[in-house]
Amino acid sequence: MGVSVPDGPLEDPSAGLRRPLRVGVLVSGSGTNLQAVLDAAGADAPFGIVKVISNVPGVRALERAAAAAVPSEVVDHRRFSDRTAFEDALLSSFRAAEVDVVVLAGFMRLLTRQFLDAFPLRTLNVHPALCPAFPGVDAPGQAIAWGVAITGCTVHFVDAGTDTGPIIAQAAVPVHPEDDAARLHARIQREEHRLLPLALRWFAEGRLRVDGRRVRVLPDADDGRATEGASWPSTSTR
Amino acid sequence: MGVSVPDGPLEDPSAGLRRPLRVGVLVSGSGTNLQAVLDAAGADAPFGIVKVISNVPGVRALERAAAAAVPSEVVDHRRFSDRTAFEDALLSSFRAAEVDVVVLAGFMRLLTRQFLDAFPLRTLNVHPALCPAFPGVDAPGQAIAWGVAITGCTVHFVDAGTDTGPIIAQAAVPVHPEDDAARLHARIQREEHRLLPLALRWFAEGRLRVDGRRVRVLPDADDGRATEGASWPSTSTR
Repeated sequence: MGVSVPDGPLEDPSAGLRRPLRVGVLVSGSGTNLQAVLDAAGADAPFGIVKVISNVPGVRALERAAAAAVPSEVVDHRRFSDRTAFEDALLSSFRAAEVDVVVLAGFMRLLTRQFLDAFPLRTLNVHPALCPAFPGVDAPGQAIAWGVAITGCTVHFVDAGTDTGPIIAQAAVPVHPEDDAARLHARIQREEHRLLPLALRWFAEGRLRVDGRRVRVLPDADDGRATEGASWPSTSTR
Repeated sequence: MGVSVPDGPLEDPSAGLRRPLRVGVLVSGSGTNLQAVLDAAGADAPFGIVKVISNVPGVRALERAAAAAVPSEVVDHRRFSDRTAFEDALLSSFRAAEVDVVVLAGFMRLLTRQFLDAFPLRTLNVHPALCPAFPGVDAPGQAIAWGVAITGCTVHFVDAGTDTGPIIAQAAVPVHPEDDAARLHARIQREEHRLLPLALRWFAEGRLRVDGRRVRVLPDADDGRATEGASWPSTSTR
């Protein structure tokens, strides 16, 4: 079915932002989602990565930023007296880099309204489950423990809840009988690495419209093809 | 990936049951899932429908049972003083019909342990969501309100919770931007009508193994093809 543009009041969260979009990325670890975004941010992309901040020193994500010649910084949360001071430091750094949009790529700290209000509908997260199922830590392990046959990943706008914000895109992933949490997580991550750059591209192309909790994706301006936020395993069969 | 049989202790919930399996169906309304099961219960099927009980008089499901020459009965919950008495009547009727397995097909009453203990791992339900997301009433409406891109349906063993029992099979269904709850529910129901008879067939063929909350599906004995509980829209594309 095609995508229709509803009549209601719709918000373009990218309205007024420059192009290419200036993206800041928050990381805490190996940074495979950072790498996916870096790889997608070529000369033709409507976005570029201008700053990477890790709250953990010495992580692989910082090496990935350096290899891509993207400025990076460690803002160690343990060196701040409270969340407010920590987030002030993040905001200060992103503002200095003129960041338009923030991507959480395996960032393991919760952000408060203080941070989110500075980037309203401009902070994206990727979560390894089909939200609202399995929020919080170890979503693949939660999925295994529950015994689901299908899980997936979700790219969403961040709100003050845990993985509760408006959903931009989701990809479904099968759970295989022999899976443990690590094997399942690896399969989910392959979809994350595809979905996160895609959602960021839609955002940067001005194709997202937010209607309360529902996010619609406008057709591609070049080819007019309808797009929607659901995607399926490449190997899917009946 | 293929299906492997794990080493752990696995329970065959169909062990000791006769073939073809004698199925009782509980309904409350139009009975489209009943119809799907009736249609699948041909002469070659490993199961047959031997009794339909509705807790609501005059519903379309009763006409469907009559058209298929399956005995049916109304057990009106409002005529019983409490759940125990109501469930006693259900159990009595199913026992008289020598029912092996109970299928809830749009049955709108919760069952207590009293009933479930009489059919341990032998009561199946179909729920219009990817459990554990959106349990309870109006799951399609809940999915629309949350703004998910992907929902689906789940066939599961019934436990004392609301749509929380061990999952046999799930099918993913896209949410389209123009959907309301009714349109989405209709799309989900098409998958339910495929998934419920399939899960019942697996059960009747003795191919389900229960390992705590996880249910595994053994390969088809005839063609050796691996099977798993996840299925995808027929129109799925990247």
